[in-house]
Amino acid sequence: MSTAGQVIRCKAAVAWEAGKPLSVEEIEVAPPQKNEVRVKIHFTSLCHTDVYFWEAKGQNPLFPRILGHEAGGVVESVGEGVMDVEPGDHVLPIFTGECKECPHCLSEASNMCDLLRINTERGGMLHDGQTRFSKDGKPIYHFLGTSTFSEYTVVHVGQVAKINPEAPLDKVCVLSCGMSTGFGATVNVAKPKKGGSVAVFGLGAVGLAAAEGARVCEASRIIGIDLNPNRFEEAKKFGCTEFVNPKDHNKPVQEVISEMTGGGVDCSIECTGSTQAMVSAFECVHDGWGVAVLVGVPSRDDSFKTHPIHFLNERTLRGTFFGNYKPLSDIPGVVEKYMKRELELDKFITHSVPFLDINKAFEYMLRGEGLRCMIRMDA
Amino acid sequence: MSTAGQVIRCKAAVAWEAGKPLSVEEIEVAPPQKNEVRVKIHFTSLCHTDVYFWEAKGQNPLFPRILGHEAGGVVESVGEGVMDVEPGDHVLPIFTGECKECPHCLSEASNMCDLLRINTERGGMLHDGQTRFSKDGKPIYHFLGTSTFSEYTVVHVGQVAKINPEAPLDKVCVLSCGMSTGFGATVNVAKPKKGGSVAVFGLGAVGLAAAEGARVCEASRIIGIDLNPNRFEEAKKFGCTEFVNPKDHNKPVQEVISEMTGGGVDCSIECTGSTQAMVSAFECVHDGWGVAVLVGVPSRDDSFKTHPIHFLNERTLRGTFFGNYKPLSDIPGVVEKYMKRELELDKFITHSVPFLDINKAFEYMLRGEGLRCMIRMDA
Repeated sequence: MSTAGQVIRCKAAVAWEAGKPLSVEEIEVAPPQKNEVRVKIHFTSLCHTDVYFWEAKGQNPLFPRILGHEAGGVVESVGEGVMDVEPGDHVLPIFTGECKECPHCLSEASNMCDLLRINTERGGMLHDGQTRFSKDGKPIYHFLGTSTFSEYTVVHVGQVAKINPEAPLDKVCVLSCGMSTGFGATVNVAKPKKGGSVAVFGLGAVGLAAAEGARVCEASRIIGIDLNPNRFEEAKKFGCTEFVNPKDHNKPVQEVISEMTGGGVDCSIECTGSTQAMVSAFECVHDGWGVAVLVGVPSRDDSFKTHPIHFLNERTLRGTFFGNYKPLSDIPGVVEKYMKRELELDKFITHSVPFLDINKAFEYMLRGEGLRCMIRMDA
Repeated sequence: MSTAGQVIRCKAAVAWEAGKPLSVEEIEVAPPQKNEVRVKIHFTSLCHTDVYFWEAKGQNPLFPRILGHEAGGVVESVGEGVMDVEPGDHVLPIFTGECKECPHCLSEASNMCDLLRINTERGGMLHDGQTRFSKDGKPIYHFLGTSTFSEYTVVHVGQVAKINPEAPLDKVCVLSCGMSTGFGATVNVAKPKKGGSVAVFGLGAVGLAAAEGARVCEASRIIGIDLNPNRFEEAKKFGCTEFVNPKDHNKPVQEVISEMTGGGVDCSIECTGSTQAMVSAFECVHDGWGVAVLVGVPSRDDSFKTHPIHFLNERTLRGTFFGNYKPLSDIPGVVEKYMKRELELDKFITHSVPFLDINKAFEYMLRGEGLRCMIRMDA
């Protein structure tokens, strides 16, 4: 029997309060409204951003809320005006969208859609400001327009990428956020040449995805930089050829890298969000052609500071958001890269838990254990 | 009678002391040694860099010295091993060179040759560290390897661009430095699209050359920014469509520009060297695709400071040196652009003096009068 047009009762992991374990319980999910899609989530994984907003230390708390934004699912039903997807389509909900009409969507360079750009403060749907989630009539807020920690969720059609139905959702789901962010930073923005040298600052999941991008570009030297030496062994699987721990040196890490490489690397990718690492990432690229790419999100009050001569000596500094991928136009192609084995994803998924144990995924991340924990909705 | 292999006695404008008027007097110019070329200078113009090193306020003074680095001339004779030019060739001596063998020369992206990169401290020739200039046996130092304030000068073959002999040397001589620097910053680095918007900070000769680049790229809005309102009328000839004087506003100029343009310009070019202007130039470009290019040379201790979120919102900041032109490979093509009337140079030349009056050129520049003063060697 079709559930289209009906309220669906299903399980969701609700964050009732900042920092308190999520509670998996039955909620109601209203039908999708104009330009919205209701998606049955099959797999979802946990990203740092979920934890950051769950802890609610750096922003206005908004609870109760259903977190989650890395996921893969199948369209259950669509609202008025939706033409691009239909029930049964395999999709990745994505935290930032594509209206296909604004100057950003019309620009080849940008993926920062004016209408559907990431909005961490909004708790309702764009159409009417209301939530589609409720529990006994009490609204539950959305998160990033995705809220994938629920068996069913409602997403704006501009935030669902329709992908190859053959693609395993328990693997490609990580392309919804972290892996595309790091991989795209390298292949779309830094663009190392075959045989080039790349430095990656921060060997978490995003940094390792950046290293994976360098591996795919056939860089000859991929230098991983991290304060945690335990990450170095793991990083080899992602193409890292050398490692530098800034703690092992009594001079700035940019000088160490410059000496290792005869003047600097061809490109660097900063994935920590520390402004000190940003400065190092910029200053360690070679003059004449070096490109540094910033990915990690800094604290609100931090500032980036360097001597302008580093720029004048023909270095480039760029920032990227979601790896410069347009979520709907480009992500299906990244899924195809995985299908053709040009890009490896399985190695990012180090843990797996049934939905009922979702809090374990939070524990792994808080302990810095592993890279991605896959949460199985049907288990 | 050939002068090849002979010492040539000729007139030069010698800077005997910091800040004292140049003295035009007879000196001796030795023959070119290995990989050197002796050039008869026909026209030379004055650039701020000459004045900066003549004043010697910010660096180790090196006197007596023959300044000058924007010029056009004809090869008189060549030293051992010189294959690329021969007597009679029309050339532009250039303050930075191209060895064609180092990693920079082999890179498509860079023009910062390891061997012949600008060196402001060197007073002798690369080959033997000696000077080719003397007066009654006393050596006179070279400047930037060019020293064009002399009827004859000796230059490394990697620092002379062989150009179309039809090109008028009294016009294309300004391509040796300032005009190529500004023009190239726009056309090679910022690369505005047809119909795009461009902000140019600083409406001196280099900034106006950057505006000329934007005009040639068919930018639809070219916004000139300068603290001196007298420059605005002149700037119209160089394509500027609008003007902003930061003094006329009680908020940062980047905010003014952002409001004028619905979120920022497509690209900006900073030609003042002020770090405050650099920050404004960066922060006034549009998120998603904006590119800011730094051209102006800052003071030694200045630092560039911004919030990293400006980068993360997909802005790019790049520096350039000599407009990213490779001096020997690319400048002859820029001369051709002038010959085909794709690029206008005549409007940059606002004054002209005979060689004996070279100190007047310094006076014009110190008073901020005009753009380029052409110095006629045969007059």
